Amino acid sequence: MALKSWVESANLPGCDFPLENLPYGAFSHGGERRIGIAIGDQALDIRACIEEELLGPLSSEIAEACSASALNALMALGTAAWSALRRQLTSLLGSHAAPETQEKARRHLLPMQSVQMEVPAQVGDYTDFYASIHHATRVGKLFRPDNPLLPNYKYIPIGYHGRASSIVASGTEIRRPSGQVKPASSAEPAFGPSRSLDYELEVGIFVGLGNQIGAPIPIAEAEQHIFGLCLVNDWSARDIQSWEYQPLGPFLAKSFATTISPWVVTLEALAPYRVETPVRTQGDPEPLPYLKERDPSRAGIDVTVEVLLQSEKMREQKVPASLLSRASLRDLYWSVAQLVTHHASNGCNLRPGDLLATGTISGSDEGSEGCLLEMKHRAHALTLPTGETRTFLEDGDEVTLRGYCQGPGLPRIGFGQCVGRIGAAIPS
Amino acid sequence: MALKSWVESANLPGCDFPLENLPYGAFSHGGERRIGIAIGDQALDIRACIEEELLGPLSSEIAEACSASALNALMALGTAAWSALRRQLTSLLGSHAAPETQEKARRHLLPMQSVQMEVPAQVGDYTDFYASIHHATRVGKLFRPDNPLLPNYKYIPIGYHGRASSIVASGTEIRRPSGQVKPASSAEPAFGPSRSLDYELEVGIFVGLGNQIGAPIPIAEAEQHIFGLCLVNDWSARDIQSWEYQPLGPFLAKSFATTISPWVVTLEALAPYRVETPVRTQGDPEPLPYLKERDPSRAGIDVTVEVLLQSEKMREQKVPASLLSRASLRDLYWSVAQLVTHHASNGCNLRPGDLLATGTISGSDEGSEGCLLEMKHRAHALTLPTGETRTFLEDGDEVTLRGYCQGPGLPRIGFGQCVGRIGAAIPS
Repeated sequence: MALKSWVESANLPGCDFPLENLPYGAFSHGGERRIGIAIGDQALDIRACIEEELLGPLSSEIAEACSASALNALMALGTAAWSALRRQLTSLLGSHAAPETQEKARRHLLPMQSVQMEVPAQVGDYTDFYASIHHATRVGKLFRPDNPLLPNYKYIPIGYHGRASSIVASGTEIRRPSGQVKPASSAEPAFGPSRSLDYELEVGIFVGLGNQIGAPIPIAEAEQHIFGLCLVNDWSARDIQSWEYQPLGPFLAKSFATTISPWVVTLEALAPYRVETPVRTQGDPEPLPYLKERDPSRAGIDVTVEVLLQSEKMREQKVPASLLSRASLRDLYWSVAQLVTHHASNGCNLRPGDLLATGTISGSDEGSEGCLLEMKHRAHALTLPTGETRTFLEDGDEVTLRGYCQGPGLPRIGFGQCVGRIGAAIPS
Repeated sequence: MALKSWVESANLPGCDFPLENLPYGAFSHGGERRIGIAIGDQALDIRACIEEELLGPLSSEIAEACSASALNALMALGTAAWSALRRQLTSLLGSHAAPETQEKARRHLLPMQSVQMEVPAQVGDYTDFYASIHHATRVGKLFRPDNPLLPNYKYIPIGYHGRASSIVASGTEIRRPSGQVKPASSAEPAFGPSRSLDYELEVGIFVGLGNQIGAPIPIAEAEQHIFGLCLVNDWSARDIQSWEYQPLGPFLAKSFATTISPWVVTLEALAPYRVETPVRTQGDPEPLPYLKERDPSRAGIDVTVEVLLQSEKMREQKVPASLLSRASLRDLYWSVAQLVTHHASNGCNLRPGDLLATGTISGSDEGSEGCLLEMKHRAHALTLPTGETRTFLEDGDEVTLRGYCQGPGLPRIGFGQCVGRIGAAIPS
């Protein structure tokens, strides 16, 4: 039975933010930046609730962390504190809360449309992985038709450092980047606007508790270091990428912007959707001992992720956004715990608020490709309801990522949206 | 004529920190973290001097920035503020300062040995370039003997994102990292301590004034965004690197630690050592217009950089550290301005305190290789005075980077040292 909230919008079918979810975010309202949780179509101001003593007993550490303007301090407190706060928030917003308490708390609900959602934490470092074997295989085929998957792929979670400064909140316009591009037909490169702008559908992992430099994180403890998950659009300029990426990997092809969804969904909320360990096929090597999950039956998480696109023409003609792809986090080759443990295995310190993204999430079938680049394998070009076709993104295109968990008898745990619209190139 | 300071150690020949230098740093002393400048063998507490009104008129912005515990706020103020502060510091520490002022200021000098130098700024993002064509060619030959330099090298400053969290101050012990390694003789990889630990001799560029996302930095303005330079040791585990780096570049092979020297030398101090544009040979392409220096005769900087190594046995036998290599920043293929402009050319925002490193600085000759990996091209193994040989670093080895500018009739502008000693592997 789904739990009920006195916030009625939270009980509506299809709502991303029922009482069982309670994701955290940071928002600006009235010139101030605060942290809050999402419930139905409202954002609850946590600090205001604590100040009015609506939340029941909480340690002073938690209360202080909830008074901050970003989630880093709360992230740093660890699982016991996160659970304690979640229990109090569940009590406050559940239908059994005393009517007087409900009345007081209602004053600290802000309609989501009235607040400006921000990047939820100060991201110290941003790391992007490459954890979808279907993505790696399809992209690899474009470059190495006979040998799409490199020999290291099934042993090591491939990843690279991304750019933290250009992480932006959902809704921020994405200006088409310029850069050096060298078409195969030209002898020399030229500088100009990218003509191969792409999205990448990913899930982000916000680090909670950090580790000291020199202190790796054992796989059995990895999830205690995860505060929660969000959606990530790792915008990519494919023409810039193909010219610059040898031998040190993607750089300016990615660093112009990365959009994240504003609400961070906790592992506690996702607990009902734990599934067996990520995809392996016969003949795949066993993970090395340091990456071996203690309980493979719950190592994966079944989060459905989707990409939708709406062109300018579609908006003019009031045609709703088209679904371009759908896949699941469970389709990745590596689990979120494996990504965390691998990252810290050399002693690298992760800090509260660091963001690890999975890399493009794709499935094996047509319709599950998490970026436009992979659709090159399709027999026909992508065609929108207006008759427009797309190889890469055009100015005015709006890309929306969605994520959710749902299943029979289980509450829907939604991620909300991660939206970005392409603006004209930056003049040089 | 060299300017004299009443701080006598600043006037000694060979001193890295004469009155003409005045590099900035952050230090801990008596439980507090402060910013200061180096003069002779002393660190001057800037905040204390401002509080006692020893520095002459300064804007409240500058005074506030100098009260911080890291350099970010001062970095954000821009060239006019930096010059104003430098003028006041030069007056205060010059031999013409009033005796009474000297006496008061002397109380705010702390012997460098008595303070703990810190990472001078909060580094938001760390980027590492690959700007030495000699390094790129030697390393490329190891992997592609017939085709060492990739086609993009002479057009684009190759770079990648590094890890900011594990940047440590000079003197911090470096634990040997563990990771996945796959020797050519093995069918499968194994996890264990790196056996190919290397240093990389680099110069770091601290960003001063930032740029907004979507607002590239024209080459003519690039140096206005540079606060100053330091030394960087980009420790590298070559065996981890060679197994992990395809296709997305170096990751855990580098992210376990990066050591930087504590004093940031300003471009103003380096002005006497500006030299013509970095190395080009006949037939090299012209830089694309966005990377074309306005004044090629002053685009380079002649900073001599050196690596020294002292093994444990050498320390026991009181044998001084051996010089392993010497090269100059002027030998790079790309200038510091070109690195900054390229980085922001896609609209990527740089923030005050961001660190850009040049990549390994090597010259063309034997004795100028900026890392051990490059010495594989030598006919004979590296031999230390104790008779020990080195292919890669052993536990107990201490690596010291030094940097300085000197020339006839010019003051020596030193960078001090960047030191790290290798500790035993982290137990897994």
